[in-house]
Amino acid sequence: MESLKSLKENVAIFLPENGLEEKLKLAEKENRSLRIKLGFDPTAPDLHLGHAVVLKKLKEFQDLGHQIVILVGSFTAQIGDPTGKNKSRQPLNADQVQKNAETYINQLSKIINVDKAEIVFNSDWLDHLPFSDVIQLLSKVTVAQLMHRNDFNKRFIENTPIAMHELVYPILQAYDSVQINADIEMGGTDQLFNCTMGRQLQETNGDAAQIVLCMPLLRGTDGKEKMSKSLNNIIGLTDEPNEMFGKTMSIPDDLLEEYIALATDFSIEEKANLNERLKSDNPMLIKKIVAKNIITQYHSEKDAEAAEAFFNNQFQKRNDDNRVFEPIEIDSLQITTEKISVLEVCHQLKNDLSKTAVRRLIESGAVQINGEKSTDPLADFLVEKETKIKIGKRDFFELK
Amino acid sequence: MESLKSLKENVAIFLPENGLEEKLKLAEKENRSLRIKLGFDPTAPDLHLGHAVVLKKLKEFQDLGHQIVILVGSFTAQIGDPTGKNKSRQPLNADQVQKNAETYINQLSKIINVDKAEIVFNSDWLDHLPFSDVIQLLSKVTVAQLMHRNDFNKRFIENTPIAMHELVYPILQAYDSVQINADIEMGGTDQLFNCTMGRQLQETNGDAAQIVLCMPLLRGTDGKEKMSKSLNNIIGLTDEPNEMFGKTMSIPDDLLEEYIALATDFSIEEKANLNERLKSDNPMLIKKIVAKNIITQYHSEKDAEAAEAFFNNQFQKRNDDNRVFEPIEIDSLQITTEKISVLEVCHQLKNDLSKTAVRRLIESGAVQINGEKSTDPLADFLVEKETKIKIGKRDFFELK
Repeated sequence: MESLKSLKENVAIFLPENGLEEKLKLAEKENRSLRIKLGFDPTAPDLHLGHAVVLKKLKEFQDLGHQIVILVGSFTAQIGDPTGKNKSRQPLNADQVQKNAETYINQLSKIINVDKAEIVFNSDWLDHLPFSDVIQLLSKVTVAQLMHRNDFNKRFIENTPIAMHELVYPILQAYDSVQINADIEMGGTDQLFNCTMGRQLQETNGDAAQIVLCMPLLRGTDGKEKMSKSLNNIIGLTDEPNEMFGKTMSIPDDLLEEYIALATDFSIEEKANLNERLKSDNPMLIKKIVAKNIITQYHSEKDAEAAEAFFNNQFQKRNDDNRVFEPIEIDSLQITTEKISVLEVCHQLKNDLSKTAVRRLIESGAVQINGEKSTDPLADFLVEKETKIKIGKRDFFELK
Repeated sequence: MESLKSLKENVAIFLPENGLEEKLKLAEKENRSLRIKLGFDPTAPDLHLGHAVVLKKLKEFQDLGHQIVILVGSFTAQIGDPTGKNKSRQPLNADQVQKNAETYINQLSKIINVDKAEIVFNSDWLDHLPFSDVIQLLSKVTVAQLMHRNDFNKRFIENTPIAMHELVYPILQAYDSVQINADIEMGGTDQLFNCTMGRQLQETNGDAAQIVLCMPLLRGTDGKEKMSKSLNNIIGLTDEPNEMFGKTMSIPDDLLEEYIALATDFSIEEKANLNERLKSDNPMLIKKIVAKNIITQYHSEKDAEAAEAFFNNQFQKRNDDNRVFEPIEIDSLQITTEKISVLEVCHQLKNDLSKTAVRRLIESGAVQINGEKSTDPLADFLVEKETKIKIGKRDFFELK
């Protein structure tokens, strides 16, 4: 099962552990496709690379012939935040939901084949759910189960108010799974609890329980929090190529492995190869490869090339900062071997400063070599023509 | 305000404490009657003296010109217990609810003027409450508030499952108060929490909060638990006079004060007088007075007299148990003073038994003097003609 190995790649949580294998066998035995649910909140239709982690997994299933079901959470979006405390959850009317859903579907088409996907709105069944059925639904779930959800439990213990309707929302998400007869529900790892409710409700209803596949949460360009529009750390699927390139170049180096795994569409072997190169190559080189791959996915290879050229050009300009680089003849450097330390080179260029002062400049991040900060005074300096060295705010040198 | 003093009689809880005074002033100022709500569960339409405690208070308000609103909880009755665990809460159809409500109203007419009361069914607004409104409603209440209800808190701590719909029911009861614009909600002390929710929801809704008047819970004929059909300890409002008399006579003596206060319609002075007599008179005499008063309330004075005569006759028969009482000449008793102990008398009558054996018989409740158990061997025995003494199952004596 080559496809199984690929389907399992990157998945953070399988519930139950062997559930995927069993559902795939079932589909084969019953000669049918699996119904794979992904819920979507139509209040925030801007998709980013974080969403893409899940969507690309969906695409894999779609390519194997399975049925994607996109669930638009129109019911709750039309209610908004009934307490009025959450300003970002203003109630939407049906038109706004429809418009946001269209925006969303349009963005989905960058990853999955939306013509083959089923798009459903949960207001279709929730708007007219009689109150007596609501009570029946609520009776299937206990308060303790809901309170076990991490954030509820924390808030309860800390006496942070939990309004009653908040406890109801996970049950609604579960009810959606019953309605659409989901075999698999996908989501980020933060959706594990809600997806698990679906399993329970399907079983209570006499249906087979869906399995749950949770994908890791991609961190945003800040390298700290999960990618989220409200944190202003996203790379959007509809960002222009140049913006995508620049944002990708801005991520911290230690995020590269995560982005290679989750944001690129390289093969498993190519990814392993890049990770190997990470150990020795300048991270900026790998970032450029990752950035071009991302742009190729959401725009085109040509766009990726153009974005790189634009970035290099901009980068050049930024470093130029409208100043003339002082040309330094390589021969003028007092070098003993081919390599000397950053500290030695900088001290030779700025011999009006003491060696200690230069060391401090380097350690404080005030020295850039080819646009990259160089904070280790004793790091090797590769003597090469066209190397650009910036010391402090005003001194620019270029080896000739 | 003589009426205020009377209205406050027996009320266990006023919320807020001076709420009743203020509502009455408001009614006077606005020249209107107060709307006084009492909820009723149509699954169990058999009314008993426990219900009557609240109903008689309602009657007082009605006599002062206020508007009684009887809320039939038809919505939840038609759902029953969705978990199916509580067999006594089978879902009722609309016809059954209507029939039970009629039975209930018929019984109400023994206490209040039902023609002047407003009778409303909460399914009228709850059946068609859109789910989005349900969510709005739930958002007004926090989980913590509901969990503060004694029984929820206890069950949560003890890990006894609480199904989610159970948390919703108090909110529905509160919503009923909003719908009927209640000034006062009445109930037993066990309804305090649910009635308090109504205050909160009315305030959230921009209405004046109802006040809550809780009446004490009358204990049943067992003298232990509150009167409740499921505990088989009720005196029903529709019980036949003879049954009412017999059941009242069967209550433990230490319940008499409670019954005088809550089950009779004597004036405050008459009640005080009866309580005084309790200190010296044979409790059976007071019980007969209470029993006749109860029968007079729900049947007639004539029925009460007849029931007493029937009881006395039956009591005689029961004690006779088709046996001849062995006549004992008072003079034959070896007495030193006018009074001797129960043990001494019994031992003289049953001199085939050891004194220890007789003492055990008395302590085990096997000795009756004039039909009342006499369990204290050292209690004074009043030597009087016609005193009937029963020892064990077979020996009957009567002083001559």
